[in-house]
Amino acid sequence: MSWRPSGHVALLTDFGLQDHFVGLMHGMVLREHPRATVVDLCHDVVPQDIALGGFLWEHAAGRFPKGTVHVGVVDPGVGTDRRILAALAHDCVWLAPDNGLLTRVLASANRAAAQGGAPVRVREVDVSAQRLPSPSKTFHGRDVFAPVAGRLAQGHFGFDALGPAAGELTAGEDLLAGDPRIVWIDRFGNLVTNIPGDRALRGIQVDGVEARARATYGDGRPGELIAVVNGFGLWEIAEVGGSAELACHLDGEGVGYGDPVEPIGREPAGG
Amino acid sequence: MSWRPSGHVALLTDFGLQDHFVGLMHGMVLREHPRATVVDLCHDVVPQDIALGGFLWEHAAGRFPKGTVHVGVVDPGVGTDRRILAALAHDCVWLAPDNGLLTRVLASANRAAAQGGAPVRVREVDVSAQRLPSPSKTFHGRDVFAPVAGRLAQGHFGFDALGPAAGELTAGEDLLAGDPRIVWIDRFGNLVTNIPGDRALRGIQVDGVEARARATYGDGRPGELIAVVNGFGLWEIAEVGGSAELACHLDGEGVGYGDPVEPIGREPAGG
Amino acid sequence: MSWRPSGHVALLTDFGLQDHFVGLMHGMVLREHPRATVVDLCHDVVPQDIALGGFLWEHAAGRFPKGTVHVGVVDPGVGTDRRILAALAHDCVWLAPDNGLLTRVLASANRAAAQGGAPVRVREVDVSAQRLPSPSKTFHGRDVFAPVAGRLAQGHFGFDALGPAAGELTAGEDLLAGDPRIVWIDRFGNLVTNIPGDRALRGIQVDGVEARARATYGDGRPGELIAVVNGFGLWEIAEVGGSAELACHLDGEGVGYGDPVEPIGREPAGG
Repeated sequence: MSWRPSGHVALLTDFGLQDHFVGLMHGMVLREHPRATVVDLCHDVVPQDIALGGFLWEHAAGRFPKGTVHVGVVDPGVGTDRRILAALAHDCVWLAPDNGLLTRVLASANRAAAQGGAPVRVREVDVSAQRLPSPSKTFHGRDVFAPVAGRLAQGHFGFDALGPAAGELTAGEDLLAGDPRIVWIDRFGNLVTNIPGDRALRGIQVDGVEARARATYGDGRPGELIAVVNGFGLWEIAEVGGSAELACHLDGEGVGYGDPVEPIGREPAGG
Repeated sequence: MSWRPSGHVALLTDFGLQDHFVGLMHGMVLREHPRATVVDLCHDVVPQDIALGGFLWEHAAGRFPKGTVHVGVVDPGVGTDRRILAALAHDCVWLAPDNGLLTRVLASANRAAAQGGAPVRVREVDVSAQRLPSPSKTFHGRDVFAPVAGRLAQGHFGFDALGPAAGELTAGEDLLAGDPRIVWIDRFGNLVTNIPGDRALRGIQVDGVEARARATYGDGRPGELIAVVNGFGLWEIAEVGGSAELACHLDGEGVGYGDPVEPIGREPAGG
Repeated sequence: MSWRPSGHVALLTDFGLQDHFVGLMHGMVLREHPRATVVDLCHDVVPQDIALGGFLWEHAAGRFPKGTVHVGVVDPGVGTDRRILAALAHDCVWLAPDNGLLTRVLASANRAAAQGGAPVRVREVDVSAQRLPSPSKTFHGRDVFAPVAGRLAQGHFGFDALGPAAGELTAGEDLLAGDPRIVWIDRFGNLVTNIPGDRALRGIQVDGVEARARATYGDGRPGELIAVVNGFGLWEIAEVGGSAELACHLDGEGVGYGDPVEPIGREPAGG
C-alpha cells in the first residue's frame, strides 16, 4: 500500500493543556509544514498511563481523514534508549514510543488485515537520520515527534524512509482485558466498564446498586442509575441527568478507576 | 437569503476537554471536509446546562466569519426522539438539539430581522437522509452533528436540503430573565450578573458588600470589590487584582451561581 | 528587515479554556483573515501573572513558522491607558500590553541582534487608527488584539503602519532572576527551578531531600526524587514515575511556586 499524507496531524498526549507543551508541539509541526491542520485528539490521558492512552487512541481509527499522521506521546521512557515507532495502519501513520501505546491500534488493524484489509507495517524511526537540531532528553514531543510528524504530513519523505522494519514490539497492557471493572470515568461521571456492548445484559451491579440496562441516557427517571452501551461499544453506568460517579460517592463508599462491577445477564425466557 | 459556507465550523459543547470527545468531533468534521477550519468556541458548559450554553453561544453571533457552521451540543436528550435543528441566522448556520439551546441566538436574530435584517429560517435535520454509518445512541456529537456540519461547511448540499421547516421549537429558559442574580462565574472569579450594562448604577450589593461601579478592572485599589460592565454588556462584580468569587468566600459566606445581587441606582442629581 | 506574515497566529493568555474567551478570539482573528491558522500556545497562565506569562512566551521563539503573529494577553490593566505594543523580533510579530510581558522575548532577541541578528523594533499600536467597532473596556483580547492580529497575519498593512516607535517600555519582572527557587510547577508535578541547565550539579536540595542529578526521567528507581535539565534548559526536580510536587507534600511540608531550593555542586575531582 502506498501512503499519501492528507496534511492532518492529530495529537494524543498526557501533557495536559495547562502548560505550553501542546502549543509548542503545534508550532513545531507547523514549522515543518506550514499548511498542516493540527488537531488535539486528547491531552488529558492520566500521566504515564499507557494502557488508557492506547484505549483512547484506538477510537481515532477511521474517524480522521485517510492520510492523517497520528502522534501519541505517553512516554515515561523519554530520553532513554526506548525506540520510536511508526506504524502504517487504518490508512494513517501512527507515531509512538515503543512502550505498548500502539498495541490496541495495531490489534484492530491486524484484525482488519486478516479480513482482507491492508497489512500493517511498522518501522523504527531512525531519529539521527532526521538531523534534528539537538533534541532535549526530556521533551521529545516537541523536539522529535512534532517535527517528524510535520515532515511526514508534508510528504517530505515516504513511510519506508523513516527507518528499518521494527521487528518485535513492546507489548502493552490491554485496558479492556481482565475481570469486569471500571476502566475509565468520563467528564460526565459516566463509569465506563470493559464489558463489550454486544453482550446482552439486564443491568450492572455497582457499589451495591443495580444499574438497569437502557437504550440511552434520556431513558429513565432523573436520578436513576442506568447501564447503557456507549459510543465506543462498551457498557457504562450513568445517572439520568446527573453523574454516576458522584451518585456512588453520595450513596455508597464511592467508586473509582479499576473497581469491580458485576454484569447481570438477561433471565432466560419464561424465567 | 442564499447561504454560502466559509469552511469554518465552531463547536460549543458540555463535553469538556479531558476526554477525547471533542477531538473525535474535529476528526469527523475533517473526514467530510478535509480543508475545514474547526474552532473550539467552548467545551466547558456546565454539563447539561442548556440555559448557560445558550447564553454563551449567543456571543458568537457576529464574531465568526459569515458562513460559519456553529455546532451546539448540550444534549441530555441524545438518543431519544428529540429533533435536531438547523437555523439560518446571523449569516451562519446553527446546528443544535431542539431543547432550547437555540433560544437566545434566535431571539437576537429575530430582533435584527425586525429591523430589516434577513429573516431567520429553521429546519429540522432529516438525519436518516444523511445516511450516516450506524450512529450510536449516546454520542451524536461525533456521529451526527460533526459529519453534518462538515458536509454543510463543504457545501455538499444547501441549507434547505437539510429537512423540512421545523415548525414550533422547544422554548429554552433564558439565563438572563428573572431577578438580579449571578448567572455565571468566569475563570477570573468575576461574578457576572444578569443586569444589563446600559442600566446606570452606582454599584451592586453582593454578599453584604457594595461593589462600586467603575469603568474597568484597573480602576480602583487592589483588593477593592468593584462593578464593571463586561465585554458581553452585563454588569459584573470583580476584585481589582484578584478574584471576587474568592473574596466573597473569604469575607462572607461565599457566593455562587444563582445567588441574588442588588443593583444600587445612581442618586438623583443633588441627592 | 521586511516582515512577511505566514498566516499563523499564536495565542498566549491567562483566560483559561473553561469560558468562551479564547474561542471568541479565534473567531475574531478569522473574521479578519478567514484562512489564518490560529494556534493556542497556552491559556492557563496564572491569572495576571505577567512574569510567568513572559517566561512561557519566550519559549515560542524559534518554534513557530517565521512570520507568525504572536498575541500575548496577560493584561490586568485592560481598559486603562496602558499602551499596546507590537515587537518585530525572532522573525515574528509579538503583540502585547506594555506591562513587561514582552521583557524576556525582547531580551533574547536583543542578545541575538548583538551577535549579528536582525535588530528588534517595537511600535506602539495606534488602536484608534484601526477603527475597530466600539471595543469594550474589559475584553481587549477579543476586541483589539484578535482583530489586529488577524489583519497583520493577512498582510492588510505592514509592521511600521501599526503606529509610532514605542520609545521606553515598561520593564517586567524576570521570573528567572533572584535566588534559586521553584518558578513553575508543570502538569506532571515537576518542580522547575531558575537554575540554568548549563550549571554542573550533583543534585538539588528541596524540602529536606537531595534530588540527585540524572540525564532524564527514566534514569533512576521508581519513586526516586531526581534532578534533570528540562526541555527549556533549566534544572527541575522530578519523581521517577510520579509527581515531585505530590511526593514533597506527602513526605515533607509541601513545596510551592517560589519556594527556595539549594543547588549542590559537583565535588572537585578526588574530593
